[in-house]
Amino acid sequence: MKACGLIVEYNPYHNGHHYHFQQAKQITDSDCVIAVMSGNFLQRGEPAIIDKFSRAKIAVEQGIDLIVELPYYYAVQHSELFAKGAINILDSLQVDSICFGSEHGDIQDFTQMYQLINTNQEEYDTYLKDALKSGHSYPKANELAFIKIGGNTLSIDFTKPNNILGFQYIKNIYDLHSKIEPYTIKRIKNDYHDKEINDSIASATSIRKHLLHKKEEDIKKAVPNNTREIIENYQEKYGSWHEWGIYFPILKYRILTMSNEELKAVHGMKEGLENRIIEKAREASDFEELMDLIKTKRYTWTSLQRIFANILTNTKKITIEELVNKEELPGIRVLAMSSTGQQWLNQNKKQIKTCIYTSNKKPYPLQALDDRIDHAYYSILAPTIQQKLINQSYQKPIFKTPE
Amino acid sequence: MKACGLIVEYNPYHNGHHYHFQQAKQITDSDCVIAVMSGNFLQRGEPAIIDKFSRAKIAVEQGIDLIVELPYYYAVQHSELFAKGAINILDSLQVDSICFGSEHGDIQDFTQMYQLINTNQEEYDTYLKDALKSGHSYPKANELAFIKIGGNTLSIDFTKPNNILGFQYIKNIYDLHSKIEPYTIKRIKNDYHDKEINDSIASATSIRKHLLHKKEEDIKKAVPNNTREIIENYQEKYGSWHEWGIYFPILKYRILTMSNEELKAVHGMKEGLENRIIEKAREASDFEELMDLIKTKRYTWTSLQRIFANILTNTKKITIEELVNKEELPGIRVLAMSSTGQQWLNQNKKQIKTCIYTSNKKPYPLQALDDRIDHAYYSILAPTIQQKLINQSYQKPIFKTPE
Repeated sequence: MKACGLIVEYNPYHNGHHYHFQQAKQITDSDCVIAVMSGNFLQRGEPAIIDKFSRAKIAVEQGIDLIVELPYYYAVQHSELFAKGAINILDSLQVDSICFGSEHGDIQDFTQMYQLINTNQEEYDTYLKDALKSGHSYPKANELAFIKIGGNTLSIDFTKPNNILGFQYIKNIYDLHSKIEPYTIKRIKNDYHDKEINDSIASATSIRKHLLHKKEEDIKKAVPNNTREIIENYQEKYGSWHEWGIYFPILKYRILTMSNEELKAVHGMKEGLENRIIEKAREASDFEELMDLIKTKRYTWTSLQRIFANILTNTKKITIEELVNKEELPGIRVLAMSSTGQQWLNQNKKQIKTCIYTSNKKPYPLQALDDRIDHAYYSILAPTIQQKLINQSYQKPIFKTPE
Repeated sequence: MKACGLIVEYNPYHNGHHYHFQQAKQITDSDCVIAVMSGNFLQRGEPAIIDKFSRAKIAVEQGIDLIVELPYYYAVQHSELFAKGAINILDSLQVDSICFGSEHGDIQDFTQMYQLINTNQEEYDTYLKDALKSGHSYPKANELAFIKIGGNTLSIDFTKPNNILGFQYIKNIYDLHSKIEPYTIKRIKNDYHDKEINDSIASATSIRKHLLHKKEEDIKKAVPNNTREIIENYQEKYGSWHEWGIYFPILKYRILTMSNEELKAVHGMKEGLENRIIEKAREASDFEELMDLIKTKRYTWTSLQRIFANILTNTKKITIEELVNKEELPGIRVLAMSSTGQQWLNQNKKQIKTCIYTSNKKPYPLQALDDRIDHAYYSILAPTIQQKLINQSYQKPIFKTPE
């Protein structure tokens, strides 16, 4: 049996994701597809529109065989740590390949680029640092540094988010001396930031916008039926989807009851930013206004959102540093699996050195930390719903019985 | 000019308070009445039903000449520290007398009791400690210790809250070698815990219950017109009165995103209680349920409410200890005054050694700390209202122009 790994957020799972999953399975000739998925908070510092178990349920029903959680301290990070966490987990799970979507679409260019940088690492890092200091954006600085070391023949556009992530996947695979074989598929049609749903392939961003503006009808053509059903039920059963706007009163309360010292200790907080955040949080009437008041060229939308996620979840620099610098993963939490996924875990039991949490008998070592993250995420729901959702973390993963 | 000090919460100001104010002015033969009033959180660990400026406005309109704030770190405390803060402030303000309401009503008994305890302090403390260890309540333990040192002839009932507070006022006056002359007036008719409004004198508790149960009509006879108007306007303008029930979602969020270590550091937290609080906060659906689930003989309703106020306001042991152990008051914040109150401050300028904050020009030294407390209190209101209320702390006190 061969397994292919995917690195996903499924926020929410749509036809584009499904196309990618099917293509990945086919081109890697795999029997089993394993997805490592961000939990309740996502890479760009946003709460996922519906919780991690609901998103995992959709995915397993759509045919993904094993969905494991990318823990918060890797998920809500810049691309380097996000990729490090995801590749570590997939490598631990013994996947034979990964297949990522990218705007570029040619795996050769990614690996060649890695090799060129790797052999000129010091020089590259110096150029990169200088370019960042001169005020260039992270993608632009990378591009400039890359050209400096002779990389002008490569054509990967580093202003594109999935190219940046893809490069980090490659880098982590090589740095880890992993046996994983990387593949990439060119992302089709829609752009990450597209706002409209024009046909059956639409971006997750546009789908969320349509949901939040009560245009549920429009998303029908862009997502599988079970996504639509689960999302619609979620709002009905739980009262609300999750988006920053709804967390604003709690976030504002939290910022304004923290001392400067406490804000400084928040993971991702930059020197002096804490004063600006306190000042603007007093003025702001909603989340968009808060972001508009604070953001500058230096403080990007994404980095601010991550900081706000860390404030909301009470995530400190010291905790994150301790976790991401650990040699070994503390464990892997399975959110959902099919019988094929279960078979994969059984067959590779001896090779998998990391503890796999698939049962309520063995407590997950970072349970208390995860609970705090999840409690922050569930805090906008009614108390009884909150308890129900937290309890799910103490139960067995979602299991899809064979048809 | 002579001044009498009152120690009050005015939650809200009612006919009983007005009667006490008039009696106090008369029996102490004073020209000026100065009230030290708890801010947005009260001695029993509750948020005040309306904010401190609104309550101060009612009081100054009713004839109190100067209303100063008892800071949070003295106000939300057991009777000893509450009394220490209040007496320190009144002594700094050079009042000639204080007049407190008590169930007992005879000042001689209070002073004699103080003297007997004071001359047998060590013995008394030992008996008190033993009695508390044996599981007696604080009032009962005091009574037993008092009898042991020969105090059986005194008849003060220490299960009554105002007798306990009164004794602490006396003790602090003597311990401070203050020139303040103490008076007490027997509280009339209503009991602290009465639930019904039967006539023009009703307890603040019963008035709040009637308000929260939308029986505004019933309270008319028990409060002055301006109390009724301001309270009714408050809900209309600000959207909500303040009571624990409304803070529950934020409190639950806060508890469940704190680590055990952080909960342990909260002021008032007792050994091991933090685990119980986390466990029960998961289950509870509202504030009453949370209290019912947690409270035991050891953890009283009041002590738990104070802990919850400290959690909500992010108040730590270390901060409180630093503040209450300071020799000198950091300053006194004036909330409202009449021309007589202003005259008192001017005439006693030389004798008053503590900085009096009556202007927006001089920043209050604990402004950042006060802001955090107040932000927690205002967090349940709309963002624009929050900002308006916080801004009031940076403006001049409410001034009642002479008629």
